[in-house]
Amino acid sequence: MGDGTARPGQEADAAALDRADPLAAYRERFVVADDRLVYLDGNSLGRLPHRAVSLAAEVVRDQWGGRLVRHWNEGWLEVTGRIGDKIGRLVGATPGEVVLADSTTVCLYKAAVAALRARPGRGVVVTDDANFPSDIQALRAAAATVGGGHTVVVVPGDGVDGPVDAVADALDDTVALVSLSHVAYRSGWCWDLSATTAVAHAAGALVLWDLSHSVGVVPIDLGAAKADLAVGCTYKYLNGGPGAPAFLYVPHDRSELVNPVAGWQGSDDPFRFDPDAGPAPGVAGFVTGTPPIVSAALVEPGVDLVLEAGVDAIRAKSEALTQRFVALADGQLASLGFNLATPRDPARRGSHVSLTHPDARAVGQALIHEQDTIGDFRPPDMLRYGFAPLYTTYAEVDAAIQRTAAVVTDGGADRWRGAAPVVP
Amino acid sequence: MGDGTARPGQEADAAALDRADPLAAYRERFVVADDRLVYLDGNSLGRLPHRAVSLAAEVVRDQWGGRLVRHWNEGWLEVTGRIGDKIGRLVGATPGEVVLADSTTVCLYKAAVAALRARPGRGVVVTDDANFPSDIQALRAAAATVGGGHTVVVVPGDGVDGPVDAVADALDDTVALVSLSHVAYRSGWCWDLSATTAVAHAAGALVLWDLSHSVGVVPIDLGAAKADLAVGCTYKYLNGGPGAPAFLYVPHDRSELVNPVAGWQGSDDPFRFDPDAGPAPGVAGFVTGTPPIVSAALVEPGVDLVLEAGVDAIRAKSEALTQRFVALADGQLASLGFNLATPRDPARRGSHVSLTHPDARAVGQALIHEQDTIGDFRPPDMLRYGFAPLYTTYAEVDAAIQRTAAVVTDGGADRWRGAAPVVP
Repeated sequence: MGDGTARPGQEADAAALDRADPLAAYRERFVVADDRLVYLDGNSLGRLPHRAVSLAAEVVRDQWGGRLVRHWNEGWLEVTGRIGDKIGRLVGATPGEVVLADSTTVCLYKAAVAALRARPGRGVVVTDDANFPSDIQALRAAAATVGGGHTVVVVPGDGVDGPVDAVADALDDTVALVSLSHVAYRSGWCWDLSATTAVAHAAGALVLWDLSHSVGVVPIDLGAAKADLAVGCTYKYLNGGPGAPAFLYVPHDRSELVNPVAGWQGSDDPFRFDPDAGPAPGVAGFVTGTPPIVSAALVEPGVDLVLEAGVDAIRAKSEALTQRFVALADGQLASLGFNLATPRDPARRGSHVSLTHPDARAVGQALIHEQDTIGDFRPPDMLRYGFAPLYTTYAEVDAAIQRTAAVVTDGGADRWRGAAPVVP
Repeated sequence: MGDGTARPGQEADAAALDRADPLAAYRERFVVADDRLVYLDGNSLGRLPHRAVSLAAEVVRDQWGGRLVRHWNEGWLEVTGRIGDKIGRLVGATPGEVVLADSTTVCLYKAAVAALRARPGRGVVVTDDANFPSDIQALRAAAATVGGGHTVVVVPGDGVDGPVDAVADALDDTVALVSLSHVAYRSGWCWDLSATTAVAHAAGALVLWDLSHSVGVVPIDLGAAKADLAVGCTYKYLNGGPGAPAFLYVPHDRSELVNPVAGWQGSDDPFRFDPDAGPAPGVAGFVTGTPPIVSAALVEPGVDLVLEAGVDAIRAKSEALTQRFVALADGQLASLGFNLATPRDPARRGSHVSLTHPDARAVGQALIHEQDTIGDFRPPDMLRYGFAPLYTTYAEVDAAIQRTAAVVTDGGADRWRGAAPVVP
């Protein structure tokens, strides 16, 4: 990262850490088209695994072009379940408990309706305002679907200390469902999944987790936690590609949880073409329509890399990367108006770190346009820096700090104030 | 198609028709890996356009790999709307009335719930049992979602003469919604879309069409018909690839139709990250989650080919292909136990022809394994032959007839009785 702005001592440190990094070789498994680019947005869209390039050609040219409809029985029918089972190994599920399907929001809607219908007599959904806006919208849609005056209570969740007490205070015997993002998309706050599930269960509520910002980078054991339902995204730390299908977790032997959007691909025998067919057992019954095969198939290479590297090793590097970033931000960015908006305790955060700054939008634009550095901006005043241990280097951590400082001290932010955003 | 079984006179006829075919050149725009293969299953999965091969590489390698998250603002955010508008030109919609999203079944569920909520005080959905099973399941799911005792009435629709009278007889002032497949997946029956919509409207019901088996091969004018909602599939005659996202049509200025599965991508400004954001105007408000970009992008080449050739020219060839198949089946297959299960009037059918036969499953397997001929089987006793005018030749029509006769007369069907199916 010889960009001329490094402090010599830190640069050496980072290089030494990268040389000693047991995951260092994984970076070569991804397409890195531009070595000057510091890409800290893998929490929004993970990098492209090399294997996905050749796989895309196989799926399109050989399978679709060459085998045509025959390939449904030569592999496509199994794609979403097979990849689901692999993701299951990352979240503490057993085979048949996870499937790829739909988008995260559609999966969340289905899961929430199923949960609410399984808890008749209770009319409240509890979430927090640190949850992703689409999740809150989907929970409200689910409450409206179930009807009968169901409501969504959104407790205060913002801030780096999490909404633990606020959620606990909201629990009573009216609560049917608690639904939270395991790692919050803004602050990076990471719930104690097991303890929180237990607290909700003690109040008689079911728990639905959104693992979008934790799967592949934080150890998760849904089975041990006795979580009732979970959904998640495959295009962040799983590197599945833009808008790749989501995943849905439903534990075995939970026949009270029924897919509210029944469709032929979730029936027990789609090719009997029977409108009265019952649902397939387990999570397979939560599938609705035909999955988008090309996008679905491309999820597998990224998941395979996470499985190969192991989540524990990934988490260890993630903590080291975020710790280094926080320490450097304290030393070099705090005096420039940046404030840490992420928990200081590594156990209580995921793999991104957020900083607030009055000029955050312009700083983010200057980083992209002048410094080849991509994080992202979240209104009104937040910059997110995401660390994907399979390809993020310690040198990139240092470079991000130095470049962020540079755009403030050299007036770069002034030049981009008011510019239209380049990254959503 | 020199497979040795042709009658010389017909072979000549077919060759002459293929030479005179104004759409003949379009076959070269598709990957045809095996010239002996007679592929009559484009009504299940359309062939691969050559352009989709290079586009897949561009989307994966250049856009995802090279541009990473930046490409959301460099094209991805517009993909589903742009392709939706192109499909809109095939179905009589104006820009902003069609969008790619989800699967056909999820779209149908959303559309049906929106329609039912827009017709308070009416509790009945009418469909027919010729409709695709997943559609019937989704309509039942929608009725359960709206609650209040909503029911789905499934009138008899099977048979080659269609269920016109049965649907008309079911209409009264309790009917909120009529939902039908424009072309039935089994018999190929094609509704008079405009007249049927008018009859339903006269009874005060809304109409939701599933265009999966007609879009791209039958002229459609939803605007002229004043249809209220429509959905459809992109991987049949639009050649969008396995499981490619569906499309949804909602006319402008129908603010009473509201997406029941609200999510961030359907809100008026997703990147404001506001859980209280209202829906985007028009059909864009019916989007829920992030679309699967690779699968979505690959829909465009097939749609472009249909637009370039023109639906009227495609329909003219489609009628000629199905007429020829019906005539040859009358002459060569009826005496072997095959019965036509498709309307004889070309105006009342889509672009596939179905034959029933007591040994249909085994005949279909023998056609695949011994005769390189792919149609498909629909239980209990139906073989479907689909004709996709952009690449199906008249010679293939003749070959399909000859090969079907051959597997019966040479005992091929006997050899495959009881075999597991190769094509779903």
